[in-house]
Amino acid sequence: MRCEVVAVGSELLLGQINDTNSSWIGSELAAVGIDSHYQTKVGDNLDRMVSVIRLALERSDAVICTGGLGPTQDDITRDAIAEVMGVPLLLDETLVDKIESMWGLRGRQMPEINRLQARIPEGADAIPVQPGTAPGIVAAFEYEGEPKVVYAVPGVPWEMQEMMTGFILPDLVARSGSSDVIASRTLRTWGQSESGLAELLADEIDRLDAAEPSEGSVTLAFLASGIEGLKVRITAKAPDAAAVAALLDDEEQRVRSIIGPIVFGLDDQNMESVVLELCAEQGLTIGTAESLTGGLIAERLTNTPGSSRAFRGSVISYATDIKTSVLGAPEGPSVSEEMVEAMALGACKTLDADVSVATTGVAGPDGWEGVPPGTVWIATCVDGVVESQLLRFRTDRMRTRQYTAITVLDALRRRLIDRAT
Amino acid sequence: MRCEVVAVGSELLLGQINDTNSSWIGSELAAVGIDSHYQTKVGDNLDRMVSVIRLALERSDAVICTGGLGPTQDDITRDAIAEVMGVPLLLDETLVDKIESMWGLRGRQMPEINRLQARIPEGADAIPVQPGTAPGIVAAFEYEGEPKVVYAVPGVPWEMQEMMTGFILPDLVARSGSSDVIASRTLRTWGQSESGLAELLADEIDRLDAAEPSEGSVTLAFLASGIEGLKVRITAKAPDAAAVAALLDDEEQRVRSIIGPIVFGLDDQNMESVVLELCAEQGLTIGTAESLTGGLIAERLTNTPGSSRAFRGSVISYATDIKTSVLGAPEGPSVSEEMVEAMALGACKTLDADVSVATTGVAGPDGWEGVPPGTVWIATCVDGVVESQLLRFRTDRMRTRQYTAITVLDALRRRLIDRAT
Repeated sequence: MRCEVVAVGSELLLGQINDTNSSWIGSELAAVGIDSHYQTKVGDNLDRMVSVIRLALERSDAVICTGGLGPTQDDITRDAIAEVMGVPLLLDETLVDKIESMWGLRGRQMPEINRLQARIPEGADAIPVQPGTAPGIVAAFEYEGEPKVVYAVPGVPWEMQEMMTGFILPDLVARSGSSDVIASRTLRTWGQSESGLAELLADEIDRLDAAEPSEGSVTLAFLASGIEGLKVRITAKAPDAAAVAALLDDEEQRVRSIIGPIVFGLDDQNMESVVLELCAEQGLTIGTAESLTGGLIAERLTNTPGSSRAFRGSVISYATDIKTSVLGAPEGPSVSEEMVEAMALGACKTLDADVSVATTGVAGPDGWEGVPPGTVWIATCVDGVVESQLLRFRTDRMRTRQYTAITVLDALRRRLIDRAT
Repeated sequence: MRCEVVAVGSELLLGQINDTNSSWIGSELAAVGIDSHYQTKVGDNLDRMVSVIRLALERSDAVICTGGLGPTQDDITRDAIAEVMGVPLLLDETLVDKIESMWGLRGRQMPEINRLQARIPEGADAIPVQPGTAPGIVAAFEYEGEPKVVYAVPGVPWEMQEMMTGFILPDLVARSGSSDVIASRTLRTWGQSESGLAELLADEIDRLDAAEPSEGSVTLAFLASGIEGLKVRITAKAPDAAAVAALLDDEEQRVRSIIGPIVFGLDDQNMESVVLELCAEQGLTIGTAESLTGGLIAERLTNTPGSSRAFRGSVISYATDIKTSVLGAPEGPSVSEEMVEAMALGACKTLDADVSVATTGVAGPDGWEGVPPGTVWIATCVDGVVESQLLRFRTDRMRTRQYTAITVLDALRRRLIDRAT
């Protein structure tokens, strides 16, 4: 089964908006074993859209178009699909009612122009999952003697994603002739390189490759996510949902037993949400004292809904004397073990917090007071006990700060887990 | 002149990396008046790459390939271009020496495998601009009886960008038969909607459309940049660089005279770099007191190289009692005019800063102590004088915090400009 992605919109070609939809779709297709060999961006031009969809149908079994489903005259994805199918667009009055009632639920009246969104190519259907007011389209038809399917989804990412997971992915898997259920689970990791992870998991990947496919199959994939660490994605395929869940559980345990504590979370969790959950579970409050990271850790913590349950606040002691005047640290070199430990203790005291993290260092690009750029001290304070660590980065200012933030949160995470066990 | 973009790499199709290069290239092409009707992602597969490049040459005059120029066996962009041209790859010994000496400058020896990067299709050339160790390729040849040009650049964004601006864009403009020089300047704005800006500038755009092209031409474009405001891009074309600079200066003055103080910066400036520059110019230090924004403002300020010249630090008073204990604010409702003003004064005092910004509010998704989500108070303190403002947002948690950060920095920017005049 091959499926291409066509991202529609002149604003994508002009670089006014970055097309992130096709990457997301590509990763979801890969997870269910569907190949995507070409992904194309095309503008709001009927002839060019028609030629791109035709070409995609010649090369592949399925096409997912994103964008161009709005109500204005620029939005012509519906027209392009109808032209490829060689059929007219028909107004679906039931769909008009549905769109009108969705506007009503939001306390607004549907503008007349939005009736145009209820036009569907003859022989095609609206996608039953419709999170927003724009309906999607699924068109299964014969093209040059072969059965093909074209989907159209809105360009708005969350609407596109709900249609993908709720309808298109299972529909594609069913059309591929498989009645299997496919699901995946992502383990978030921090502290290993991609090659290091691959080495640790090499035997496990060999074992999976050699496994009997009749029992259901499991695959592992590594996804780099830049400053957020590496993801290990487990994908399982089996005849029913219970069997898939069992495979995922089993494989998660196997992977955890191999790579151990570098797994900090699952799926949508991130480092700060995990730390906040651990604090909340243990009834602890948290504060930060940041010099190098300049508020980045506080910002990440407070960007998590519900953070006020555990997060007390921060002192961003960028100027050296603030480390003393507000955090009560003794005077001395500001990038040092003594200073970072005093900052962590000071954060707990000044902010009346149970646990804390602290950072000081030189982000670069230049050195400072004889300390080379990339030199970083981090500390954590738990139950009044401070632990610190020296880090050395050889990267740019932004990454040095980001890596420091996630590294010190990970150090606190590990201490909180140890504390509970 | 039409130019397509081909982004090469299986990791792009699998969504492991987002292709941002083709958007960036699209926006640069648009700025110099070159159309880009199709942009394609294709994996590391020779047959598919060759078919994509051929198709692009049938539809357009030029093709820019990004990625696939590394030294490993996956990197086959060179091979694909040679196959399209119908020529062999030849090892360029001069280029080997150049690559070797670049490795040497970094204190490392070139691995033997990197010699492969010096293979160039017969009749093509290495791009003279080479910021990294990977050479780019420019291949001008006749394809099906028409003159065409194919460029290949590395997928690493900064290497790609230097080759684009230093060589490919001027080369394309020259090939388009124009001897004109094209340049653009971007005005960064905050505080107007896209339709509001379009309305304000409608007459000016009409005037430009009606202008005589013989005098050189100027165009205006609006680029939405999400939480960072709107950009107004002025692009000028004229016979020489001096005439282009004069056109840009003149148009910048015209636009500024119409939209006035909502222009906060130019080109690569952002709101925090502008505020830090104003502080440094006036010999002022700055601190922040953040509740709602939770360190976001401090983080933005400290992400700017050289921020330590003016930035003192911050108190993130997320828990209500910290507003009192650390910032010295009187007890009272934490989302109120009195509180935000006391926070701004407290920031100057606690952090020994000359000017400050303060934020408090409810980011959502839920309300808090009877205050609806999206309710935000901001304040600025300059020379001991505090000014505050109530904002109401109807958006998500992330945007409420981001909009608040840039709005309060903009308020401070305006006061600093007033102060100096």
